[in-house]
Amino acid sequence: MLKKTDEYRERTVHTEPIFQGKIISLQVDTVELPTGGTATREIVRHPGAAAVLALIDGKMLVVEQYRKPMEKFQVEIPAGKLDAGEDPIVAAGRELEEETGYKAGRLRPLSAFYTSPGFADEKLFIFLAEDLVKGESNPDEDEFLNVEAITFEQAQQYIREERISDAKTILAVYAWQVYRLTGEI
Amino acid sequence: MLKKTDEYRERTVHTEPIFQGKIISLQVDTVELPTGGTATREIVRHPGAAAVLALIDGKMLVVEQYRKPMEKFQVEIPAGKLDAGEDPIVAAGRELEEETGYKAGRLRPLSAFYTSPGFADEKLFIFLAEDLVKGESNPDEDEFLNVEAITFEQAQQYIREERISDAKTILAVYAWQVYRLTGEI
Repeated sequence: MLKKTDEYRERTVHTEPIFQGKIISLQVDTVELPTGGTATREIVRHPGAAAVLALIDGKMLVVEQYRKPMEKFQVEIPAGKLDAGEDPIVAAGRELEEETGYKAGRLRPLSAFYTSPGFADEKLFIFLAEDLVKGESNPDEDEFLNVEAITFEQAQQYIREERISDAKTILAVYAWQVYRLTGEI
Repeated sequence: MLKKTDEYRERTVHTEPIFQGKIISLQVDTVELPTGGTATREIVRHPGAAAVLALIDGKMLVVEQYRKPMEKFQVEIPAGKLDAGEDPIVAAGRELEEETGYKAGRLRPLSAFYTSPGFADEKLFIFLAEDLVKGESNPDEDEFLNVEAITFEQAQQYIREERISDAKTILAVYAWQVYRLTGEI
């Protein structure tokens, strides 16, 4: 069992707000170290996000979109940030429907993780969609997406080609692999 | 096969530098949309990071540390950011040794992913450590770590308790599970 040593907690002695944007904000905290000195911590605040692993007839629903930070197209499971105060499961259902047109009869929590615990508080919630029904897609006005359903082998190929290369989608493909091996998800 | 539609590429018309820190920098780009309008993109630049899945006698090496963005202790696989121009495999070996005292005879690429493709360019490389030899740990002077080796069942328990809740470690545990099921990693 790992010790939880309370003296290692980093007490904030100063917070410097740097930026408040539409999606993220940035602050620099000065913290006291256990040894008595201080250090700075650069911290990005993010509202969190929800994503969906949606399997239909043995295929996974993915969307392709341009990702500006990497300046490249990426194939990802449907996802989006949480609106203020929004329950992740509601966001997951909304993003699935907006981006792919599919409505989930049921969404089950699959995983949840902090994307970058060193500098950001973003938490991402992944749900497994069940009882999918086709409707109409309706992406945000500055989102431009291709929707597709891909096989497990295609997903592995896309990972090798780095067309799939984001944490949530790679994790979803691992979860899918475990599901294929055990029948449980 | 997904289409790769070149007109959906987002052309930058302006870059506003906001912040240059020790670890991250922040800029806001104004981009042209396919429809003709513009939108802004908040972009965090990060040098990238490397992490290690190290299995010894059926246990996984983890470190516990305080994570300021979430204000809590987190149990994670050994990891750290890349130094300027550093090869991820070199950083992985260095972080493993600094944080745990173990030296890997061999490091194999296991996975690599962008942690938050919506707002950051951080790429994280995970390696599988083989032929581990015990030495002495030597963490950075502002790092305070507990090192432990945990079983697969403990890892699952820590995930349920959210003591493990970051992308790289959850992904490493999935990879470990696949390895246990198939004998391949």
